[in-house]
Formats: sequence, structure tokens, C-alpha cells
Amino acid sequence: MAIITVIGSGMMGSAITWPAADNGHTIRYVGSPLDRAIIDHARATREHLTLKRPFPKGDLHFYQIEELAEAMKGADLLLCGVSSFGLDWFLDTIIPQIPDNSIVLSITKGMVALEDGSMISYPEVMEQRAEALGKKGIDFNAVGGPCTSYELADLDPTEVTFCGRKPETLRWLKSLFEQDYYNISLSTDVRGVECAVALKNAYALGVSLAIGMSYKREGREFEHYNSQAALFGQAVREMTLLLDLCDGKPEQLPLGVGDLYVTVFGGRTRKIGTLLGTGMSFDEAMEILKGTTLESIVISTRTAVAVRRLIERGIVRAEQFPLLLHIDELVNGGKTVNVPWKAFEREDF
Amino acid sequence: MAIITVIGSGMMGSAITWPAADNGHTIRYVGSPLDRAIIDHARATREHLTLKRPFPKGDLHFYQIEELAEAMKGADLLLCGVSSFGLDWFLDTIIPQIPDNSIVLSITKGMVALEDGSMISYPEVMEQRAEALGKKGIDFNAVGGPCTSYELADLDPTEVTFCGRKPETLRWLKSLFEQDYYNISLSTDVRGVECAVALKNAYALGVSLAIGMSYKREGREFEHYNSQAALFGQAVREMTLLLDLCDGKPEQLPLGVGDLYVTVFGGRTRKIGTLLGTGMSFDEAMEILKGTTLESIVISTRTAVAVRRLIERGIVRAEQFPLLLHIDELVNGGKTVNVPWKAFEREDF
Repeated sequence: MAIITVIGSGMMGSAITWPAADNGHTIRYVGSPLDRAIIDHARATREHLTLKRPFPKGDLHFYQIEELAEAMKGADLLLCGVSSFGLDWFLDTIIPQIPDNSIVLSITKGMVALEDGSMISYPEVMEQRAEALGKKGIDFNAVGGPCTSYELADLDPTEVTFCGRKPETLRWLKSLFEQDYYNISLSTDVRGVECAVALKNAYALGVSLAIGMSYKREGREFEHYNSQAALFGQAVREMTLLLDLCDGKPEQLPLGVGDLYVTVFGGRTRKIGTLLGTGMSFDEAMEILKGTTLESIVISTRTAVAVRRLIERGIVRAEQFPLLLHIDELVNGGKTVNVPWKAFEREDF
Repeated sequence: MAIITVIGSGMMGSAITWPAADNGHTIRYVGSPLDRAIIDHARATREHLTLKRPFPKGDLHFYQIEELAEAMKGADLLLCGVSSFGLDWFLDTIIPQIPDNSIVLSITKGMVALEDGSMISYPEVMEQRAEALGKKGIDFNAVGGPCTSYELADLDPTEVTFCGRKPETLRWLKSLFEQDYYNISLSTDVRGVECAVALKNAYALGVSLAIGMSYKREGREFEHYNSQAALFGQAVREMTLLLDLCDGKPEQLPLGVGDLYVTVFGGRTRKIGTLLGTGMSFDEAMEILKGTTLESIVISTRTAVAVRRLIERGIVRAEQFPLLLHIDELVNGGKTVNVPWKAFEREDF
């Protein structure tokens, strides 16, 4: 049995341990500085405070961040459980403490845009950071694919992809986590997998605009699907182009599409998109969602910055990304919703 | 202003006339033998019986099938408004009566599997039929893309693709139907467009299985999305392969994906998939849905027949289509739901 140390014990970082605990592995949960209450609550009740579910049965241990060294001692796997907003903390505070030759599996999905408009994935950012620190042999892997934390903790059948550099590491990771309800594909196309699943954050906001437009028109919470489907199709078209721009393999597109699907149905991205769809400005919508952290805003902004840079460089044309650029206008340009339907039309002769 | 004659005035055949009527064109609605009540009701009330909405304002005329010749006289465009179940009637009874050099736009989405497992689109089937009859110069075009009839009649923003052989015909068709709420792309990739949108009928049933599985597990109408997203992703993977097998361009995939999205949310395909997902046999589920016509059953059966033939011929492998083959087992093999999750896992090294 392996020892798995989770660093960052929020909802997703914790939920992914369910299948591993069910396989009999030892899990050590370390709270980030933001997770103090989660760890205290877990120690007292063996329930996850924000997931609102009991932890699985098994050999589980709970640590505050100052106990990190003890929690990492003898661990076979380090799990990076922070969201995009914790990435800098993980890069600056945690990676310096990770022993050489560790294996890391990260649940953080995302991309970083470089100065020239090219985009690289979080595992690559982590690799670069470890290299800059003179670390040796740390093997960074990541989890992609459609998976909401609540449903995983409820053992809903889920399909994900683990990506990394080494097939043998990926197969070992799969052996730790595989369950009848947790199905794992493997890929060495790190950039492609991460790019596909990161982009869904931006485009789920785009699809949700149609929900808000429908609510507004109907004067009640009634959804129309033709317009959602039109935005969904356009999102897939733009994601296909972006995946190619990231040098990801087209085979990863279904991961991003599945992840887009699940993201349209849940949580904060749907909420902000729906509010913007009713005609609110971004500031008005954020007023209502006060205090929520929105990866969709980070990712859509970052992707739009990259795409605008690539447009300047003549590598792509603005007409190829009308939905992304409209999302960016809403989020960063003070505009209100006005979906550029005619810009989605194509002639394919 | 043009004269448009609709042959088959059911829900979709009629709904597509809304934007054309709003553009001021004359519409002549001809009922199929199944649409008698629709035509009688329209004459008496100017309301569509099954769409349950008033017809748009404009120069509209209503005909029973025996008045077809009169309705076609001087028409600029013939609109084939039947569903897959009316295709044989259209091929056998209507095409012989269509004048040479007519322009036809068909809303019927679907594919026919040939003996060798190859699949061709309905417009191609119509072309072959017209050729066999010695007809000259009939220009067959078709409508693909996500569009439910109710929502189109409610003027929900909708994005479709018209496909056909001639760019100039397609541009003219677009000029007849284009509206701010009805957005039209154009493509000469007839096979690709039709294949992409036909396949969604089969796979929407597949995605809906997860809805029924969730209902059963929860004991109430509560949906889980991780499992739906996993099936959605797998559907996109298999649709991508099938599109390629049909010699369709990969650019058409977003049409099929958008159409899959809208089909999961509405109507009969969702119902049969959900019932099968709760563990019912196909016969039990059809007992409940008695009397409903199911294009998803026709298309999934036909596609599975084609794929099994291609497997026999060594052109594809069964492992590439686990979802389609499971749908076929449910529909035609007397099995009950048992999603082959592990068969969806891949190693992409």
C-alpha cells in the first residue's frame, strides 16, 4: 500500500483521494493556509467541511501546513490539490520543499500565456520552477477530464485522463486510483490534455450566456437550447483551433468537450455566465457573486491575452475567435452581452 | 419575393418557414398523408396543431397532399419537411412528381448504410433516386445543425448549416432564410454535414443513459453530470471516427457536437435513453413510449449495422466503438444497461 500526501485539501484535492482510500492506501491531508478550518473540522468529525461529506473509511491523517515536512516523510506520491489561485503558492512555497525524485500528481487545471502569445500548461510551469530551483528528478503529472468534486465523492462514474512524461509512472498512478467508478485514461501529451481541459473554463462561461439570455427573455428560469447549442458548437470550433495552437493532439478534444459539458451544469462559471447573459455588466455580476473565486475569469482573460498577441503577430485572425473575444469584452472591456451570431457563420466551399 | 412550397408540414418542416415568412416570402404548406389534421387546423385557425403556435404573419397557403401539383406550380423552392420515417414516401411518391431543374432543401437528417458498411447521406439518396428516375438537374440541398422546432418557432437564436453541391444555390437559400435569430453557415461537404448531425441521434441516446442511471440510484429525478460528461466525451470520440469513415471533413464535428448537446435536452431520444438507463429492457421502455417515432433507434441501429460490417471487413476495430455497440446491444440485443466504462479508457503514449 502506498502513502499519498495531499497538499491543499480543498474540495477537488480531497475528492480525488476517495478512490485511492477505497483501494486501501494511506492518505495524509495537508491543508493550505486557506484550509485550516477544513483540517480542524476533519480531525474533530472526520467529515470534509466544504465537500459536506464524511471522508472515506481507511488510514487517513490530517496535518496543518506547518506539519508539511512530517506529512511528506516517506510519502510515495505528493498530490497537488490547489486550484489555479493556489498555483503561485505551490510554486513559491511548496516546490522548494519537495524532495528530489518525488512523484507529483496535480489536480490544478490551467494554462499560462507567455509573452509571445504561446501557452503552456501548469505541469510545465511546475517543471520549469523545479528546474530553476536546481531540483532533480521530480516527476510532475496532472489530472484532466470532466470531474466535479461532489460527484466524485458520491462515487458517480467518472472518466479522467492522467497525463505525464513517463508511461510507467502513469500506469503506477492509475494502479493507485483506478476504481469501478473512477476510470482513468493515460496520455503523455501533457500540453494537449491540459490545454483541452483548461479552455473549457473560458467557454463554459460563453455557453452559459445563452442561459441568462433565455431567462431574461422569458422573465423566469426557463432555458432555451438552440442558442446554448450554437454557442457550444462555436466553443468546440474555437477550442479545436486553440488546442492546435498549443501543439496539443486533436485526440484530446473530447476531454475538453466533456469537461465543457460538465462545467456548463455546475457551479460558479455557469452563474457568472448566466448573470452576464441577462445583460449585467461584469462589475454588477461580480457584486452578486462577491467572494467567489472564478477560474473561468482567469483562464478566459489569459487565453484572450494570448490570442490577441497571436493576432498581432499574424498567426491567427480575430475572425477565428469571435466567442472568446466577446467573452473577453464582457469580462475585461466593460461591455454587456451581445453575442456576435453572424460572426459564427462560415462558408465552407 | 420567392414562393416556397413545403412538402410535409410537421413540426420541423413548418418551423423552418418562420424565418422565410418573416422575410416576406410566400409559403405554401402541403401536408403529407399524416398531416391532414395539421392542414385542416391551419386553414381553420392559422395555428400549427402540433407546434401549438400561431403561424407567422405573411402570405401563407395550405394544401392537402392531393393538391400537391397546384402547390408546386411556379414554386421557386421545394422544401422536404418529412422526418426519417417519411423518407421512403418522399423518395417513392414525391420525387417522381418534382419538375426537372427544381431546387430542393431538405430538413430530414440521416444516413443510410450500404451493403459494404459505407454510409451515405439522405441528400445523396435523393440524388440517386432522381437520377434513377431520369430526372434532370434537380438540385438537392439540406439543413444540418442544432435546431429544435419549438425553439425556432419561438425565435430563439439558432445556428444551422445549409449543405449542397453549388455555392451559388446555397447563397441564394441563405438569402431566403437568414434572420437575426436564424444564422446560417454554408458547406459543400454534404456527406460530412449530414453524417455529423445524423450521428447525434444515436449518441444522444447513449448520453441519456447516465441520466436514467442517476435517477435510479438517487430514487428521484436527480442528475449526475460526471457520468453524462464521460459518455458525452466518448460520444465525441466515436463521432469523430465515424465522420472520418464517412469521408466527412473534421471541420463538421462541432455541428454534430452542438446537435448532440441540444438533443440530450429534449424530446424522445432523451426519454428512451433515460428509461434504458434505469435498467429497463428496450421492450419495456418502448411500452412506455408507445406510439412515438424514434429516429435515434433507426440511426443507432443503422450505424451499428454499418460498423459491424466494417469490423468484419477489418477496416475498424470493435474496441473503437464501445458506446455505439452497447447502445445497439440495448436496442437490438435484449440487454439491459451496463456501460462499458473500462472500454473507454485509453493509453495515448
